[in-house]
Amino acid sequence: MPATEEEDAWVWNQIKAEAKRDAEAEPALASYLYSTILSHSSLDRSLSFHLGNKLCSSTLLSTLLYDLFLNAFSSDSNLRSAAIADLRAARERDPACVSYSHCLLNYKGFLSCQAHRVAHKLWAEARRPLALALSSRIADVFAVDIHPAAKIGKGILFDHATGVVVGETAVIGNNVSILHHVTLGGTGKVGGDRHPKIGDGVLIGAGATILGNVKIGEGAKIGAGSVVLIDVPPRTTAVGNPARLVGGKERPSKHEDVPGESMDHTSFISEWSDYII
Amino acid sequence: MPATEEEDAWVWNQIKAEAKRDAEAEPALASYLYSTILSHSSLDRSLSFHLGNKLCSSTLLSTLLYDLFLNAFSSDSNLRSAAIADLRAARERDPACVSYSHCLLNYKGFLSCQAHRVAHKLWAEARRPLALALSSRIADVFAVDIHPAAKIGKGILFDHATGVVVGETAVIGNNVSILHHVTLGGTGKVGGDRHPKIGDGVLIGAGATILGNVKIGEGAKIGAGSVVLIDVPPRTTAVGNPARLVGGKERPSKHEDVPGESMDHTSFISEWSDYII
Amino acid sequence: MPATEEEDAWVWNQIKAEAKRDAEAEPALASYLYSTILSHSSLDRSLSFHLGNKLCSSTLLSTLLYDLFLNAFSSDSNLRSAAIADLRAARERDPACVSYSHCLLNYKGFLSCQAHRVAHKLWAEARRPLALALSSRIADVFAVDIHPAAKIGKGILFDHATGVVVGETAVIGNNVSILHHVTLGGTGKVGGDRHPKIGDGVLIGAGATILGNVKIGEGAKIGAGSVVLIDVPPRTTAVGNPARLVGGKERPSKHEDVPGESMDHTSFISEWSDYII
Amino acid sequence: MPATEEEDAWVWNQIKAEAKRDAEAEPALASYLYSTILSHSSLDRSLSFHLGNKLCSSTLLSTLLYDLFLNAFSSDSNLRSAAIADLRAARERDPACVSYSHCLLNYKGFLSCQAHRVAHKLWAEARRPLALALSSRIADVFAVDIHPAAKIGKGILFDHATGVVVGETAVIGNNVSILHHVTLGGTGKVGGDRHPKIGDGVLIGAGATILGNVKIGEGAKIGAGSVVLIDVPPRTTAVGNPARLVGGKERPSKHEDVPGESMDHTSFISEWSDYII
Amino acid sequence: MPATEEEDAWVWNQIKAEAKRDAEAEPALASYLYSTILSHSSLDRSLSFHLGNKLCSSTLLSTLLYDLFLNAFSSDSNLRSAAIADLRAARERDPACVSYSHCLLNYKGFLSCQAHRVAHKLWAEARRPLALALSSRIADVFAVDIHPAAKIGKGILFDHATGVVVGETAVIGNNVSILHHVTLGGTGKVGGDRHPKIGDGVLIGAGATILGNVKIGEGAKIGAGSVVLIDVPPRTTAVGNPARLVGGKERPSKHEDVPGESMDHTSFISEWSDYII
Amino acid sequence: MPATEEEDAWVWNQIKAEAKRDAEAEPALASYLYSTILSHSSLDRSLSFHLGNKLCSSTLLSTLLYDLFLNAFSSDSNLRSAAIADLRAARERDPACVSYSHCLLNYKGFLSCQAHRVAHKLWAEARRPLALALSSRIADVFAVDIHPAAKIGKGILFDHATGVVVGETAVIGNNVSILHHVTLGGTGKVGGDRHPKIGDGVLIGAGATILGNVKIGEGAKIGAGSVVLIDVPPRTTAVGNPARLVGGKERPSKHEDVPGESMDHTSFISEWSDYII
Repeated sequence: MPATEEEDAWVWNQIKAEAKRDAEAEPALASYLYSTILSHSSLDRSLSFHLGNKLCSSTLLSTLLYDLFLNAFSSDSNLRSAAIADLRAARERDPACVSYSHCLLNYKGFLSCQAHRVAHKLWAEARRPLALALSSRIADVFAVDIHPAAKIGKGILFDHATGVVVGETAVIGNNVSILHHVTLGGTGKVGGDRHPKIGDGVLIGAGATILGNVKIGEGAKIGAGSVVLIDVPPRTTAVGNPARLVGGKERPSKHEDVPGESMDHTSFISEWSDYII
Repeated sequence: MPATEEEDAWVWNQIKAEAKRDAEAEPALASYLYSTILSHSSLDRSLSFHLGNKLCSSTLLSTLLYDLFLNAFSSDSNLRSAAIADLRAARERDPACVSYSHCLLNYKGFLSCQAHRVAHKLWAEARRPLALALSSRIADVFAVDIHPAAKIGKGILFDHATGVVVGETAVIGNNVSILHHVTLGGTGKVGGDRHPKIGDGVLIGAGATILGNVKIGEGAKIGAGSVVLIDVPPRTTAVGNPARLVGGKERPSKHEDVPGESMDHTSFISEWSDYII
Repeated sequence: MPATEEEDAWVWNQIKAEAKRDAEAEPALASYLYSTILSHSSLDRSLSFHLGNKLCSSTLLSTLLYDLFLNAFSSDSNLRSAAIADLRAARERDPACVSYSHCLLNYKGFLSCQAHRVAHKLWAEARRPLALALSSRIADVFAVDIHPAAKIGKGILFDHATGVVVGETAVIGNNVSILHHVTLGGTGKVGGDRHPKIGDGVLIGAGATILGNVKIGEGAKIGAGSVVLIDVPPRTTAVGNPARLVGGKERPSKHEDVPGESMDHTSFISEWSDYII
Repeated sequence: MPATEEEDAWVWNQIKAEAKRDAEAEPALASYLYSTILSHSSLDRSLSFHLGNKLCSSTLLSTLLYDLFLNAFSSDSNLRSAAIADLRAARERDPACVSYSHCLLNYKGFLSCQAHRVAHKLWAEARRPLALALSSRIADVFAVDIHPAAKIGKGILFDHATGVVVGETAVIGNNVSILHHVTLGGTGKVGGDRHPKIGDGVLIGAGATILGNVKIGEGAKIGAGSVVLIDVPPRTTAVGNPARLVGGKERPSKHEDVPGESMDHTSFISEWSDYII
Repeated sequence: MPATEEEDAWVWNQIKAEAKRDAEAEPALASYLYSTILSHSSLDRSLSFHLGNKLCSSTLLSTLLYDLFLNAFSSDSNLRSAAIADLRAARERDPACVSYSHCLLNYKGFLSCQAHRVAHKLWAEARRPLALALSSRIADVFAVDIHPAAKIGKGILFDHATGVVVGETAVIGNNVSILHHVTLGGTGKVGGDRHPKIGDGVLIGAGATILGNVKIGEGAKIGAGSVVLIDVPPRTTAVGNPARLVGGKERPSKHEDVPGESMDHTSFISEWSDYII
Repeated sequence: MPATEEEDAWVWNQIKAEAKRDAEAEPALASYLYSTILSHSSLDRSLSFHLGNKLCSSTLLSTLLYDLFLNAFSSDSNLRSAAIADLRAARERDPACVSYSHCLLNYKGFLSCQAHRVAHKLWAEARRPLALALSSRIADVFAVDIHPAAKIGKGILFDHATGVVVGETAVIGNNVSILHHVTLGGTGKVGGDRHPKIGDGVLIGAGATILGNVKIGEGAKIGAGSVVLIDVPPRTTAVGNPARLVGGKERPSKHEDVPGESMDHTSFISEWSDYII
């Protein structure tokens, strides 16, 4: 068994152990934990069941969605490894994430992202109406609106996630952290490549709006509430409306950490304050 | 048959043809497409069914809402023509909108707006508790919060739509495009006319907040993330927090196009950057 | 009977009278009003029923949630008095709130806040997985994401409420008004006390983002769309991105009213404009 | 207005008055009574709503069935007059039927019969798969299995109704009363006219089984538990397994009343006992 | 604590132990067992929850029924002791009843009888429309049709139960066993006391029909498929259609056991055969 | 491919062709037909989906049941071949069965039997609580009560099916036809082998009650409403209450056909009448 499979198994066992502990301590939750986690033989099944129940409607039945998710997870092991990477990302980067099962059950950002990956797979297989129907359900249920064509890496944390909008030609790298109300939007009515490209390890603060086919370099950081219409070089910080680079356009300050992983939202404050006020 | 009726019929036929094609190509979606579109004899019925299913709850049954919507659409042909105009708006202005049926089925902005029009009609008929209950369901289900008294024109595109808030005395003209997270808010606890008036052809970027009884002139453009507390003259652009006019308060730059239709979000960037930085 | 109990009873009687009047005037709503309000013997029961129906899912049944809410309200009279205070706050501060029953039935901010108080009580009783599951349902259904550990006072108005995010160590005082899309967020991946502390009587405008363990003083006002990373002294106003104090850091202007109650969103505009432009 | 329309209106007004009285006396039932009766403008709508809710499933939505029933009742006034006649039959013949609304809401025999009439209409219009699907729902929900091709008159009382089976070529006249567990069955695997013909005014006791294309004459009475394989002359009584005529095959006793209306189940006992034992 | 309370507690503990064991052995059932039994603090709550879920509909919500049952069980300890006696009856008399929890969860006769007792209590409190609505749900869901006015003792086994009909003025004593398809019916359209009176310890075989205000004496036995229109003396057996006493009308055979408890269905066969054939 | 697999495939293709034809002819049914038949890749999946939807409840979710059925059908090809044999039996023997899809969708006897086979498999695998829970759902939903331990052959027609009861130690052979209200019951409170054994090709008429460990010989026929407490030799007919052999106990008439297949219910009438009257 390759290392990753072992690791994946370890996470699933951990989830089951957590759910078992919680079910014993909290009878009011035991039924929910059994139906959603403990009665399933694998993370694939648990996640498919949970997403099917969350995203179903009176005209898109839970059994149909369950089938759809299960088929996707069974036929594409990348989906599972990406889910595991996202679970790890939440657990490591979000101090409010107390357990893997907490993320699996409750994080709408996590659930939206896993469902998006299946929608993206359907899109890639030219099953576009189904992909769009699925994305629409994600947008209704979680208030997370990701176009099924958007490409998203692994180890992603959509924290809180409400209001996130990601456009059709957007690309998000690996180990990216994106807070709620973030928009990766387009530039207008013309089609083609028109949405942002987010490099690995980027951190995008709450409420940031990034518009157009701009490049946010590896390890860059976008301050909360920023409106970004320009490229942002690697390992620099852009803040404000319109966003400017901390340290100046010519010689922006470079940071050493990977903000998508360190989640350092606010260390630029003093520098920024100096720069602006 | 007047031209518009012909055009309306054309759109409905188009929707059915699209749904027919998709149902044949995608068995997993056929049941949904039949129940929501193909089994209905008119757009009115299809839309009433779809809205009834989306907005129902365990205490507001789908049959009651279906009846309510069907009665409204049957007794007021303006509602249908406005729906058709909105479908056209999405199809023309949003490059991600691949078909009319895609908009009808999946666009929460479109669906919120049609349901709002019925709530507004109920409000005008002094059936206010019902109008408010309906608006509340729209706010819960689509995260789009439009007061039933707000007046909204035709040819409206609420793109993505999550988080839109439109206050009681707001007025929105025709051919307006409004992105997600946009607020047309009030000024405080005093009643009366206290919300923005949006002229024809206006484009309001993502996350913009417009507060108070201000006038956004015909064909104006509000940049993403702007906080607007002042009147904006016709065919000018306001950006920033607080928003200022591009080109300056005294002699703002005038654009020629209708941004609500052209959806040009970002052409002011270079000018803006020059102005500010 | 102490005065407050009398007042609480008065509000409940008022709600029933409003519902009775509306049920008679609007047959289409009568069933909903009876099931949600008129068939119940107390506000506790009505609210428990309504929240149970709103927040239930196919794996968290309405009867379980109803029981949970009813037990909480029965065993802790503070929950009811806080609900009454919030109903009064909405009725007094929001000119669009036409009746107590309108708030009880339709305000997702009100409903989120009452459900949060129960989640907070469960958190305090070390029933954390259940508290988190409940908060997750609030986030899904109302797009309001409040960590169950966050402390919230009485007389709170979450107006519109969509997109509100309140972090684990945040504290909100009494008589605070918070508009939609407001974030009380943390500073990164390190645990501990890392979220804002909001004093009594504060008003926070739409889309404001307050990050880190900063102190927003009693009676302060935060402008719409502001990004606040610094302490704000009592009865001062902070605006902009990044937020600065109106009147300047050294001698900020002090206002006399309690903005959380007066809801004066925009009186600082002229001063602000002078300051900035 | 013709007399019958007046009478029909009288029954509907009576139903509303009963429901109004019960809703006021019993808050726990008010929501149900409003949604099912009081919020509707006609018996057609009330009945369509009620049947739609009773017979719907996760794959046959209530809105679809509601539409189907409403269209049938609107386009065929015989359906309504038959429903009125059946309501009167229950009210007059069944001492346990305390009100018209009690029958409308609660009598599965009444509801099965009305739904069957719509299925029969669909069958006659050559919409056979839909007619069969509807009959199947009636059989599942009410345990009443009537083939959509069976012809049923007016003024019918299916008392208790559980377990009733009526075959494809059966014919039931007017003013017939049929108790539960009654079978009007066929003779085998050969098609064609193979089920009983029940004359006007017949009474069929609980558990009676009538097989084959036999003729039960006008005003005849079939004893409970009888197995009838022969013709039964008008106004005679058949009892036993196999059923024999009371009074003997040659000169059976004739009764004067119309047992389908008088509901006299047992007056033949003494005579029967004499005959048999 | 009186002996019976101890015994009641013993049964509830037994049920929980069985459910715990089954939940551990069968993950697919664990969620169901937790939600229905293990998450509840008492038999009252478990039974109220289970009946509420079984009997609810889209217009009679589970929370309303749950409340109704819980209030009834809380305010009337006879309901619980009767439920315990019925659980014991099923466990002792039915060899297919493998555990108390099996009866509680799965026996529609047991569940119908408990729900009937609540309907009967409502009837006695003059809440007749609600009592009838509840009985109607029992008839729909379980195909068991018991008029809410019927009086039923304790220690009752309705075995299989499908198709049982019990009329308004019927009375059933203690320790009675009644098989499926049994009718305790009336005599016609005249009101008043018109249904059978069943003595203690009676056994009524499958498909038996007993009509009119006849008296079935203590410890009597009614053969399967019998049609009984006469009084049956204590500890005698009636069989056939029409039913006659085994041993003859003048000097019927007397048995010693209590057939309602011994469940001896068929020991009379040889004697009967001799008598008849 | 073995002949039977070809035949099985032929039936499934037939079902799809019928559903396709009906969906085109009847838009109101298209959604149902797609979700239940046309969107599925095999009869196993279609049947699992349909049974899951029919038998689910608020505490036994459709996804869980779907999984359960799908696993059973996938792992045991006998279940599918038995389903095919039952479909053929209905199509050949019941003149009201107009198509295979009609039986698959609408015949509660067919659906009960397939679900029973899965319950029986679970019972055989010692998953008894789950088997009993499943049987309980079949009894609630279809009013068909078959103990999961009962053994049932192939080519079975449960016609109409309402009220059928089959006990724990009953055995039913191949090519048997059983009408509604038939009981294969036990003899009392003692466990062990206590239910009837039904030979191949037997026909049991409506309402017949067979009690005890008696043997109904191959090709025998039981008349409607009979109460059978004795063995019935092969190819003989038993009728009446109590049942006697047509032709007499000593030299009963023998028939040549297989009544379970020929479905000849009534040919014995003349002989019977002669015998009895």
